[in-house]
Amino acid sequence: MLLDPTAAGLFPIAPTPFTPDGAVDHGSVDTLITRYLTAGATGVTVLGIMGEAPKLEPDESLAITARFIDGFGKLPVIVGVSAPGFAAMRALARAVMERGAAGVMIAPPPALRTDDQITGYYRQAVEAIGTDIPFVIQDYPLTLTVQMTPKVIRQIVQENASCVMLKHEDWPGLEKISALRGFQKDGSLRPISILTGNGGLFLDFEMERGVDGAMTGYAFPEMLADVVQLQKGGRRDEAHDLFDAHLPLLRYEQQQGVGLAVRKYVMMRRGFIASDAQRKPGAALSATAKAEVEYLLARLAKHDERARL
Amino acid sequence: MLLDPTAAGLFPIAPTPFTPDGAVDHGSVDTLITRYLTAGATGVTVLGIMGEAPKLEPDESLAITARFIDGFGKLPVIVGVSAPGFAAMRALARAVMERGAAGVMIAPPPALRTDDQITGYYRQAVEAIGTDIPFVIQDYPLTLTVQMTPKVIRQIVQENASCVMLKHEDWPGLEKISALRGFQKDGSLRPISILTGNGGLFLDFEMERGVDGAMTGYAFPEMLADVVQLQKGGRRDEAHDLFDAHLPLLRYEQQQGVGLAVRKYVMMRRGFIASDAQRKPGAALSATAKAEVEYLLARLAKHDERARL
Amino acid sequence: MLLDPTAAGLFPIAPTPFTPDGAVDHGSVDTLITRYLTAGATGVTVLGIMGEAPKLEPDESLAITARFIDGFGKLPVIVGVSAPGFAAMRALARAVMERGAAGVMIAPPPALRTDDQITGYYRQAVEAIGTDIPFVIQDYPLTLTVQMTPKVIRQIVQENASCVMLKHEDWPGLEKISALRGFQKDGSLRPISILTGNGGLFLDFEMERGVDGAMTGYAFPEMLADVVQLQKGGRRDEAHDLFDAHLPLLRYEQQQGVGLAVRKYVMMRRGFIASDAQRKPGAALSATAKAEVEYLLARLAKHDERARL
Amino acid sequence: MLLDPTAAGLFPIAPTPFTPDGAVDHGSVDTLITRYLTAGATGVTVLGIMGEAPKLEPDESLAITARFIDGFGKLPVIVGVSAPGFAAMRALARAVMERGAAGVMIAPPPALRTDDQITGYYRQAVEAIGTDIPFVIQDYPLTLTVQMTPKVIRQIVQENASCVMLKHEDWPGLEKISALRGFQKDGSLRPISILTGNGGLFLDFEMERGVDGAMTGYAFPEMLADVVQLQKGGRRDEAHDLFDAHLPLLRYEQQQGVGLAVRKYVMMRRGFIASDAQRKPGAALSATAKAEVEYLLARLAKHDERARL
Repeated sequence: MLLDPTAAGLFPIAPTPFTPDGAVDHGSVDTLITRYLTAGATGVTVLGIMGEAPKLEPDESLAITARFIDGFGKLPVIVGVSAPGFAAMRALARAVMERGAAGVMIAPPPALRTDDQITGYYRQAVEAIGTDIPFVIQDYPLTLTVQMTPKVIRQIVQENASCVMLKHEDWPGLEKISALRGFQKDGSLRPISILTGNGGLFLDFEMERGVDGAMTGYAFPEMLADVVQLQKGGRRDEAHDLFDAHLPLLRYEQQQGVGLAVRKYVMMRRGFIASDAQRKPGAALSATAKAEVEYLLARLAKHDERARL
Repeated sequence: MLLDPTAAGLFPIAPTPFTPDGAVDHGSVDTLITRYLTAGATGVTVLGIMGEAPKLEPDESLAITARFIDGFGKLPVIVGVSAPGFAAMRALARAVMERGAAGVMIAPPPALRTDDQITGYYRQAVEAIGTDIPFVIQDYPLTLTVQMTPKVIRQIVQENASCVMLKHEDWPGLEKISALRGFQKDGSLRPISILTGNGGLFLDFEMERGVDGAMTGYAFPEMLADVVQLQKGGRRDEAHDLFDAHLPLLRYEQQQGVGLAVRKYVMMRRGFIASDAQRKPGAALSATAKAEVEYLLARLAKHDERARL
Repeated sequence: MLLDPTAAGLFPIAPTPFTPDGAVDHGSVDTLITRYLTAGATGVTVLGIMGEAPKLEPDESLAITARFIDGFGKLPVIVGVSAPGFAAMRALARAVMERGAAGVMIAPPPALRTDDQITGYYRQAVEAIGTDIPFVIQDYPLTLTVQMTPKVIRQIVQENASCVMLKHEDWPGLEKISALRGFQKDGSLRPISILTGNGGLFLDFEMERGVDGAMTGYAFPEMLADVVQLQKGGRRDEAHDLFDAHLPLLRYEQQQGVGLAVRKYVMMRRGFIASDAQRKPGAALSATAKAEVEYLLARLAKHDERARL
Repeated sequence: MLLDPTAAGLFPIAPTPFTPDGAVDHGSVDTLITRYLTAGATGVTVLGIMGEAPKLEPDESLAITARFIDGFGKLPVIVGVSAPGFAAMRALARAVMERGAAGVMIAPPPALRTDDQITGYYRQAVEAIGTDIPFVIQDYPLTLTVQMTPKVIRQIVQENASCVMLKHEDWPGLEKISALRGFQKDGSLRPISILTGNGGLFLDFEMERGVDGAMTGYAFPEMLADVVQLQKGGRRDEAHDLFDAHLPLLRYEQQQGVGLAVRKYVMMRRGFIASDAQRKPGAALSATAKAEVEYLLARLAKHDERARL
């Protein structure tokens, strides 16, 4: 099933589990799938920045993707295909779609600066992968250094019929959501799905601004799914209560560079993956940092009983 | 009294209050001083990035500084003197020190890349302003794009006897604090004061890593002062409880660009300043954003009674 | 006399002459003025990046500007007023215009990325300095990292009636000139003057693409003036012959960082200025570099007899 | 035969020839090889930035490399293996070495800032590809934005025995060459080969500063080879005469972005390759630009008879 603009809910950014000696841990992929489904995921995104995609061989990338596709069944799997050249992007995009992926995600290369460069890049990317593959724009200036205005995003969507979703992780970005939804109201932008990233740091208010859900990898995906559902159900205070209980840990996990180490450590502690190993280059947690995470986990467990280890 | 390495506690980054028509509001400066002292400030920093320093005329900068110096009495006032050239930096530094400032803060210009460029810049800056002025290194890569390793900071400290403090706002930065304190333990770095910024987003753990306090402008300075004191007193859980209650708002205020508008709005609501006006260019809060802040304030008031408006 | 869109010819970017002990050398300013006028300058630009503007005290900036205004008589003097804040920009702009400057030059701050940020910045700058001051856009991405498309430049010109000139130093930039002149032909852009920088590295072809002249500081301004005149007179081969004779030295001078040291050294050797001293921070020429420059000067003298020392 | 620190002469950066419909043109690869050998090349570098490497499929990359290896016989072929992740870098490096490459070239990823980040990256890269593969450091800050001081380069060389060459294209970079050769004289740096890039823009003086030759793709490789030989033979004036004759065109070709289009166009005009086609994304030459290149070629032919078309 192809990704379309009605996609909503929680699409976790899946980490790639490795064994301590660096092999892909396919058993942990299966565990991860089960846990994500239990948590309420409505889809999943693999081979993202936090999935350590550049550290994988092409056949490993395909194998991991296939396992997620099989595990998620009818639920959509989005595959990150960002690459320094269109040859590699096209090859990966065609391969994963043939294997059953629902769509692909494309981040702009860091050198892009002007509005024309950005819109031109997406036109060329679509030409490269083909107009039949639904794609997601990744808007993540903090890491990618590319800044897209709401008008630029609108132009990309309007010029490329295969664009169905925005992964929004501008920072700050609340007004951008309102601007894009405003474009839809005034008829200048066709409907697209907007899911938000940034580790979830503003998910509470992003939902109120009108996004369709979350696409991020926080180690407690059930919280993300629940906040999305509570907000959709109009239960604002409950959504914030739950979100706030997790915010101290979520903030800790959102640190650039070391964030993935925190996330994998917590996932290992929760039994989602067997090991928190990363392939090189990867930041490791110091003993002090691990103790800090444990302290945060202990505090969290007091507020959210599902968070007890 | 000159700033020295024993400086500790809370040095708020003071905003510059303006009237709605853009004049400096000296009356609000006085109110701000009173509130900061009541909150437990042990010093203050003026003309920082969040103080809208580049929007001030030279005589306005001096007048504001003078008012803070008079108001803070024996408590130290640090003045931001970062400038695109050493002529302006020297002129401002000499002028404020003559008027009674305790020291100056210097941020590296964004073009610096290599370790040698950074250490060379600080040597030249010290030569420009004179070796008799105590100075603070501002380490803020998220905004300034300059990355200083712990070794580079150590070299700056060791090469310049007038360096007495680090304003630490690397992000993430917890391990950097441990590295610097480790240098002091192994004798390779002389004692300096470390105060942390980044809007306070990691103050809870930064204190545990060994910093001396906070230098940031969150709109509830009493919370910052209290977290510093609680942690110094070994009351860890209480420190985190207080910090966590403020984290949803603090996180909201820490958004780049719009953050100062949030901060000034909350300060206006609390009676710290008469108006939340900024000089141009400045981001304004939308009605939606104001409502979000009010919601956060209302929630905060349930956890921290001093936060009631 | 105010700068207008008919400005053409050679506007040298004037260096600021210093004595070896760092004082402004006003006598050399006078010599420089005489030499520029003899070389065929039709105006001059002071306090540019290569004029070491950030190293000057405000009163020094005004004094230098005044001396150039007096020396150039009825010929226009453009003053660089780029600053990190609008307060300083406005103060300098109003002061120099009152003293008789013809217009000001404004470079965008390095943080600007999107088209909207750039056009917004110029709107705010014009609001700050006043709509009565003719201004020049400086388009210099190699150093400033801000990329303006032809459409963005057009928008700035169309939105701000006081914009009369573009200092074009995009790199590469020949097609940009053609695009802008094309906008004028199709009526979507009103006439503006375009002078080119980049040390003159593409002046030969820039003239053929339709610019009005040069605004750059190469140490042989008479070559720049002559190439402009030869090209305007349709004497293409002669223009290239002259240009090519200077290209080895011009290329050497165009090196980032060390370029000003080369330029001042050659100007000192030619008697334009008494000393090649720079204020700190400034790159110095090694003995080897000086020998290389001397070798280039000796070779040049064989092709251009006016270049004999 | 493996690359070693005695490598010298001319290693052209080979473009990848395509047919107008975008297929790799292996016939033109053979022609290119013949022309390079005739021009005096002592080796060749493939899959560099100007070789459009990111636009190639993995099997195409290998096929092109193999053809160059076969064509160059005992002369060394260096292969660019820079990649966003170590998995792809290792896979390509092992594959080309097995096929007979002499060594690989590694550029630092743009995100690197501090000295420690850069040296750490090369340690990890060597660990990834294996310590048995000779490698070349590519030092190209203008495009890569990574700045390596001479001390950082020395540290990389000293820490990694398999580092045998520096591709130097810092800009400006003459003093850097002197600094590195100075390190060798004082015994703090073991011998390495230094070849220079930057389109050859400073080759005349780089040779005098002590480099071993050129690694760049200017469309007249015989000029590069001859300048290297003339300078090695102490025939300085002749070297500069030849170089200066080419400088107007060489400068034109060195424009970022459009440079490869110029280079391929001239190579097509000279019969080195059958078509100047680039794969997307690629800049095309306007009619005006082509006419400018033709004009430069005609002028060049007057000074260098081998340049006649």
